[in-house]
Amino acid sequence: MSSTRYSILALALATLFSASSAISFYIWKKNLIEWDSKMKELQKSLNSALEKCAAERQGRIRAQQALRKAVVAQPQAKSENLDIPSYPMAPIGIVQSCFSTRNGTPRQPLLVPLARACLVFDSTRVPPASLEGLEEYSHCWIIYVFHLNTDLEKLWKHPSKSKFKAKVRVPRLKGGRMGVFATRSPHRPCPIGLTVAKVEAVQGNMLLLSGVDLVDGTPVLDIKPYLPYCDSIEGAVVPNWVMLDSMLSVASVGFSDDFSSSLLDCWKSVEKKSLYSSPDELKSLVKQALSWDIRSVSQRNRPHNNLLKIGSGDASDNASDLDDSQDGEASGELIYHLILDGMDFSYKIDGNGNVMVKEVHLSSAISFGNNKNRCNFLMWKDKIK
Amino acid sequence: MSSTRYSILALALATLFSASSAISFYIWKKNLIEWDSKMKELQKSLNSALEKCAAERQGRIRAQQALRKAVVAQPQAKSENLDIPSYPMAPIGIVQSCFSTRNGTPRQPLLVPLARACLVFDSTRVPPASLEGLEEYSHCWIIYVFHLNTDLEKLWKHPSKSKFKAKVRVPRLKGGRMGVFATRSPHRPCPIGLTVAKVEAVQGNMLLLSGVDLVDGTPVLDIKPYLPYCDSIEGAVVPNWVMLDSMLSVASVGFSDDFSSSLLDCWKSVEKKSLYSSPDELKSLVKQALSWDIRSVSQRNRPHNNLLKIGSGDASDNASDLDDSQDGEASGELIYHLILDGMDFSYKIDGNGNVMVKEVHLSSAISFGNNKNRCNFLMWKDKIK
Repeated sequence: MSSTRYSILALALATLFSASSAISFYIWKKNLIEWDSKMKELQKSLNSALEKCAAERQGRIRAQQALRKAVVAQPQAKSENLDIPSYPMAPIGIVQSCFSTRNGTPRQPLLVPLARACLVFDSTRVPPASLEGLEEYSHCWIIYVFHLNTDLEKLWKHPSKSKFKAKVRVPRLKGGRMGVFATRSPHRPCPIGLTVAKVEAVQGNMLLLSGVDLVDGTPVLDIKPYLPYCDSIEGAVVPNWVMLDSMLSVASVGFSDDFSSSLLDCWKSVEKKSLYSSPDELKSLVKQALSWDIRSVSQRNRPHNNLLKIGSGDASDNASDLDDSQDGEASGELIYHLILDGMDFSYKIDGNGNVMVKEVHLSSAISFGNNKNRCNFLMWKDKIK
Repeated sequence: MSSTRYSILALALATLFSASSAISFYIWKKNLIEWDSKMKELQKSLNSALEKCAAERQGRIRAQQALRKAVVAQPQAKSENLDIPSYPMAPIGIVQSCFSTRNGTPRQPLLVPLARACLVFDSTRVPPASLEGLEEYSHCWIIYVFHLNTDLEKLWKHPSKSKFKAKVRVPRLKGGRMGVFATRSPHRPCPIGLTVAKVEAVQGNMLLLSGVDLVDGTPVLDIKPYLPYCDSIEGAVVPNWVMLDSMLSVASVGFSDDFSSSLLDCWKSVEKKSLYSSPDELKSLVKQALSWDIRSVSQRNRPHNNLLKIGSGDASDNASDLDDSQDGEASGELIYHLILDGMDFSYKIDGNGNVMVKEVHLSSAISFGNNKNRCNFLMWKDKIK
């Protein structure tokens, strides 16, 4: 073949190859773009799937946390062969009590006869018909929750970490301790309280009681009629270290000259929210409530030391851990406070046990102002025995 | 230029181009493989992410369903302004009682002095130290759960659908009803029972009681010492329709000739699992338990009709709804059964209230055989007061 033909052939081949190069490059580039976009799509799907996954996971974790909160954590250590479920107990009602704070609430029922409380029941769970007949009993039991226990949440969420103390101080033993189940201390594994009160009247889904030792806002799990043939045990014996200090009476209860006017002032604001009929009745309540030395043991022993931390230690249900119902005065005498129906009664007590109630003003901490469900005396006027 | 040179040039170009083609093809192929594998990886990640997503979603849904089940449903209707949480109460222990079934369990505490129960506490929640001092009291309260209530689950999962009855029958009113809170019926919104028992001894994480009216297996939420100055109310009044039938005593309790030998036979099997020291002591228990007519009101009134459905109606805590502890005999007299410590005592009672205990055999329904935690008398021998 001639060299010209070779040239033409070579040129043709070259063209062919460069064309095919160009074409394959073009195809490659096109595919590249395609794959790139497909890759991007896939990546996008993957990212959104991972996001969704994270969201579902978060939702799952939240639901499981809420589940744990709702159900008592099983004891962390192995409980011996005891397969213990927990029983969710929903309160059937709430106590509206004359005792606005734990401090000052009696440590024993029936000690303050004028102490009134109105139990308001959730009518979806306690239809009024379920209370029929109760007013024919003189007394009833109230089973309630120690809702003011500071360790409540921890007790349920992390029982192994809760600071549940097996033993509590018993004052009569001068600092010695006894098992918590040998006392009526509020700090128990199941924070359930038991007390009794006098049944005054029943109306709709409400129960009026007197002689109560419950603080305002206490959730109630159950009420049961008091049956003497079941509940009153003759000859029941208690150990001699059982504290009877809560039954210490004071020497006298007096009222300062300013008291009456300050009470009348308060009365104007609280009248419609009070379970009491008049300022005089309130004054009687204060006198009754203060007739029993409601101060803690430490306060009693060292009245001029207001920095003392008070520990719970007696056998009664309403022992409070910290008593903050006092403040010092320049004169050195302590002013104590008793808050009833949202009214702050300030008083002093001398070394001989003579109480002097100084004055009363509306408590800044407690306010029933917006609570339209607050029971008052007028609702019960015609029903009180 | 000569044509040879063109040829060589053309050939060189052709070679170059084909080489570059080959190279670019090679590169392309390599990338293709790379991208393909990368794509496959991405796809795989995406698939696994989607799977994980589905799993998390399933987990979330399950947790939410369980949450709904675990938490007491808030009343479906609006409760008036009451924001009621539920308090999960986990039992601190379980009752091991001589009363194996609800039927036959006394309806009042202390009625059967020999009725023993051993409360075994979960030692992770009730360290033995927490029971110290309890043995110095003569009596204690037991707050427990009516765990045999048939409507328990429904009460908690679907409170609006639960068959909670506001009123229960009171026999003395001849079929009339009173509010459930005017009775000690077990069927209450919060199925909490309250009873008292005599404290016999404390040992480790166990408490031995007597005079109990609790059925075996009862979960205990709390125990509290009995304080007469709080818990015993003089002059407490009850309405006249309060049922006292549970205190009806029978005329006499006798034992058939075959009884003793059948008891000795049983004793061989139960000795190691019984809270009683001897067959004689068991016989005394049976006599005490049967001294009180434990049959329901309907059974008492129409003893020969064993198809009668018995309704709950009295004021005591252990009223049972259905009494299946009887079967008929050809002679027309009914045989009743009392199951104590897993032993089935069969007896008859005539129209004059004379009880005749016929024989005893091991109950097929109850078996403590495999329960190594079962308390027995030997554990307590040296501690019983």
